[in-house]
Amino acid sequence: MKQLILLRHGQSEWNLENRFTGWTDVDLSNEGREEACEAAKKIKGAGLAPEFYFTSYLRRAIHTLQIVAAGLERDWVPVVKDWHLNERHYGALQGLNKTDTANKFGAEQVHEWRRGFDERPPLLTKDDPRWPGNDPRYSALTEDELPLSESLHDTIARVRCCWEERIVPALRCYDSVMVVAHGNSLRAMIMMLRHLTAEEIQTVELPTGSPLVIDLDERIGFVSERYL
Amino acid sequence: MKQLILLRHGQSEWNLENRFTGWTDVDLSNEGREEACEAAKKIKGAGLAPEFYFTSYLRRAIHTLQIVAAGLERDWVPVVKDWHLNERHYGALQGLNKTDTANKFGAEQVHEWRRGFDERPPLLTKDDPRWPGNDPRYSALTEDELPLSESLHDTIARVRCCWEERIVPALRCYDSVMVVAHGNSLRAMIMMLRHLTAEEIQTVELPTGSPLVIDLDERIGFVSERYL
Repeated sequence: MKQLILLRHGQSEWNLENRFTGWTDVDLSNEGREEACEAAKKIKGAGLAPEFYFTSYLRRAIHTLQIVAAGLERDWVPVVKDWHLNERHYGALQGLNKTDTANKFGAEQVHEWRRGFDERPPLLTKDDPRWPGNDPRYSALTEDELPLSESLHDTIARVRCCWEERIVPALRCYDSVMVVAHGNSLRAMIMMLRHLTAEEIQTVELPTGSPLVIDLDERIGFVSERYL
Repeated sequence: MKQLILLRHGQSEWNLENRFTGWTDVDLSNEGREEACEAAKKIKGAGLAPEFYFTSYLRRAIHTLQIVAAGLERDWVPVVKDWHLNERHYGALQGLNKTDTANKFGAEQVHEWRRGFDERPPLLTKDDPRWPGNDPRYSALTEDELPLSESLHDTIARVRCCWEERIVPALRCYDSVMVVAHGNSLRAMIMMLRHLTAEEIQTVELPTGSPLVIDLDERIGFVSERYL
């Protein structure tokens, strides 16, 4: 039996400030760091020892992984960082306060942007300082790959690249793989693994700091899952 | 022009306790963490932006790298961890107090073990709990690769594997590569790059927390070096 451990990063500074984050590279809050320590204790307590790590290009996930790896005394385990595992890009909403945005556009519209499967928040323009093409970490991406905004559908499509090309091959080599990422990139993985519909995935919400252990068969097919 | 940045990890808990460390996986002291923060400031201040990281399997180097990467706001840069970059293995001396060891074996003998090029400290036996074959991180190594003790010569031979197979290829792809490792594994790299003799390398000592920037030509040949 193979094991895939999915962990959502702990609270970030912008969760605290109730702002849309997306690809904005904010750090963990102190509470977020605490959550990561707790997650490490749960993984260790369950006797799990991941042999390969994946994370995104965003520091709230990378730092969560570093804290967990230190807690597991498995700092030395190889890690792949991949922008395909980033949070969903929230377009021109990034940085805005969620309450202000609801007041401006209406709660219903904001709910649709947040929960619709194909809804994209308002697009960034390329002259916006928030456009990811301005960030050196995305300099290797083609213009098609640089999002101006993403629906959950868009996010799933790019998570699939990393899943098929990197995570599944790692699961063929190793019995235990851990992915530390974001609410929506992890939902994308669960949707693929469990063959959920667009409707079903909308009710799936991963808590922060609670590792989800997914048992997989030798063909990397879903068997069962449990939170630690 | 290509740049290779070599950084020796900051002070560890056993530097403080004056013990032989080698492959023992001790963490940084608070001063060591401070040194890493300072190193990040120096690298940033010099306008350098490494595009690829290498480090060892030992947490004092891995944590130094994580602190530097955070200070540079370049957490997302890919990292390869490789046991070939570990500190020289100190055999049966690992864990012993350096003063006690000098009292027991004589200062001259200890000096030879520490500074001789071909001198190996007393060998570990395979039933010793310190034998690296007991550590899961080295489970993929062949018995020939698992050291019982190492001379500087031995260390250089295995650093060469990582240098030729991983670091040089990275330098062909990227203009700026950073290696965060250990006194002796970094000396090994300097010896190869500068074509130093066994005698010459014995006078080379990298300070902790001071990044060494080596300029290389397009053929990865040494041009010049400076400490930041």
